[in-house]
Amino acid sequence: MLGIEEIGYYIPQGRISNYDRKTQFGIDDHFIEEKIGVRQVSLKSPDEETSDLCVKAFANLRDKIAIDLNDIEAMVVVTQNPDRNIPHTSAILHGKLALPNRCACFDISLGCSGFVYALSIFQAFMAANGMKKGLLFTADPYSKITDPNDKNTTLLFGDASAVTLISDQPKLVSGAFTFGTIGAEHEKLICNDGVLFMHGRAVFNFAAKVIPDDIRQVVAKNALTLEQIDLFLLHQGSKIIVETIADKLPVPRDKAPYATYDYGNTVSSTLPILLAEELSGNARNIVICGFGVGLSWASGLLKRP
Amino acid sequence: MLGIEEIGYYIPQGRISNYDRKTQFGIDDHFIEEKIGVRQVSLKSPDEETSDLCVKAFANLRDKIAIDLNDIEAMVVVTQNPDRNIPHTSAILHGKLALPNRCACFDISLGCSGFVYALSIFQAFMAANGMKKGLLFTADPYSKITDPNDKNTTLLFGDASAVTLISDQPKLVSGAFTFGTIGAEHEKLICNDGVLFMHGRAVFNFAAKVIPDDIRQVVAKNALTLEQIDLFLLHQGSKIIVETIADKLPVPRDKAPYATYDYGNTVSSTLPILLAEELSGNARNIVICGFGVGLSWASGLLKRP
Repeated sequence: MLGIEEIGYYIPQGRISNYDRKTQFGIDDHFIEEKIGVRQVSLKSPDEETSDLCVKAFANLRDKIAIDLNDIEAMVVVTQNPDRNIPHTSAILHGKLALPNRCACFDISLGCSGFVYALSIFQAFMAANGMKKGLLFTADPYSKITDPNDKNTTLLFGDASAVTLISDQPKLVSGAFTFGTIGAEHEKLICNDGVLFMHGRAVFNFAAKVIPDDIRQVVAKNALTLEQIDLFLLHQGSKIIVETIADKLPVPRDKAPYATYDYGNTVSSTLPILLAEELSGNARNIVICGFGVGLSWASGLLKRP
Repeated sequence: MLGIEEIGYYIPQGRISNYDRKTQFGIDDHFIEEKIGVRQVSLKSPDEETSDLCVKAFANLRDKIAIDLNDIEAMVVVTQNPDRNIPHTSAILHGKLALPNRCACFDISLGCSGFVYALSIFQAFMAANGMKKGLLFTADPYSKITDPNDKNTTLLFGDASAVTLISDQPKLVSGAFTFGTIGAEHEKLICNDGVLFMHGRAVFNFAAKVIPDDIRQVVAKNALTLEQIDLFLLHQGSKIIVETIADKLPVPRDKAPYATYDYGNTVSSTLPILLAEELSGNARNIVICGFGVGLSWASGLLKRP
């Protein structure tokens, strides 16, 4: 059975401190530490392309586990900030990593729900085609599109990338998933002429309303109860949304950690970055949940094989 | 078992005649009719977005078969010319079609290999999640990115869209697929600052070299021989590439039809548009093969359930 064997990631060293922007945006320490929960956002260098972020995540993966490039049968890149629209970033990355010609490559365009969706999509694709080793990249550098004067976005989003090795020697395998879309609300989180706009209150309300119910549904779909879930890894949209969802479920806040104080919301990479630390941990049943751009969401269960 | 139940498509009525551009590009009737095989290219209106093309393909699908929107559990849009980068076009389309909130939506970024890839990806995703009805859209309007003064692209590419209804009541089901990528050659077909560049000779040579062998492999992988294949539906890149692949296989040219004289190469929509006419036809074993941007390719077998 296919599942997650290892995860590598890359958080660029560049940072913009939100403490340095208190006057500009009229915010205080409480807002920084307790509401958004982002002290600083990570920032790639201007000449680092999306595929370059992926290359660095892959280097981190190879520090953790030996990989023969010839074994890689498939690769997907989840991004809405590709190197360019044509070709897909996975093709460019395929060249940079010198993967074999027989490697299937495609991009998935999704935002903060992207990792959970892609985990289901990519594992299903690999299984259907008899593949045993594949790479699932997430890399969505929002510094390409955030307006540094827009409080709703520039204080929140950080750059990062992650790569999840899917193989037949998994540490975690997935159970049932749930998915959803409210396309009629897509204008609440949208890129206009290359600049990101987010209606923060509307996106918060969407997540606070839809996600707790969706998580209860995915737990039930896996024939479990909330009490049987050891860990809820929620998309790190902000500290307040993670806490709100935990409280509404309800589950203890320490079972639904918020952990991205020092680099921010890295879109589809928040979940694999959190998950990397849990792969060899004690949690047996882990719920993962992503939500955002679309508006779109997905939840899934990860368990020990 | 999931498979293709019906296909709708939309080819905009707008046309640009290549006969009217003979002087501008120094081409003759032989070049138009026998080499590229494109007498005119289809052209969407400037205010038609990619999602609008999808809406019109869906209207055509509903002319052919009754669809209850509430039954649609998943939707994918294959495009590299989305409405915008954020959100994904499938989210916008979800809103325009008023699909249910429980519908999973995502975009796949692939070019001319996109339909074959997406057929495998989407069917596998639906099957893994127990879904019975989904919509696979292809819509890649290259008029957004072609330079009207670039002979290598403007004479070839036409606008269109298609939607393939995947369901548990299929007319055609898929067998084994093959996939490949030569990412190191991605610059041969690339969008620079919003304008498409194609090294026509290099892309032709790639397809002429790689595709016949790939098709032989996919046929063997399905435990069939070339003689047992009734129809080879090849991506309609140009008349000369379709004929070259047919001759190299070798198979009779009438088994590998070229049919896009009057609207051109519609990228990932060429195959579903051809396939729409074959769904109720006599062909029992059909090979489909897409190739292009990436450089990327995919082949698959379709057969009667």
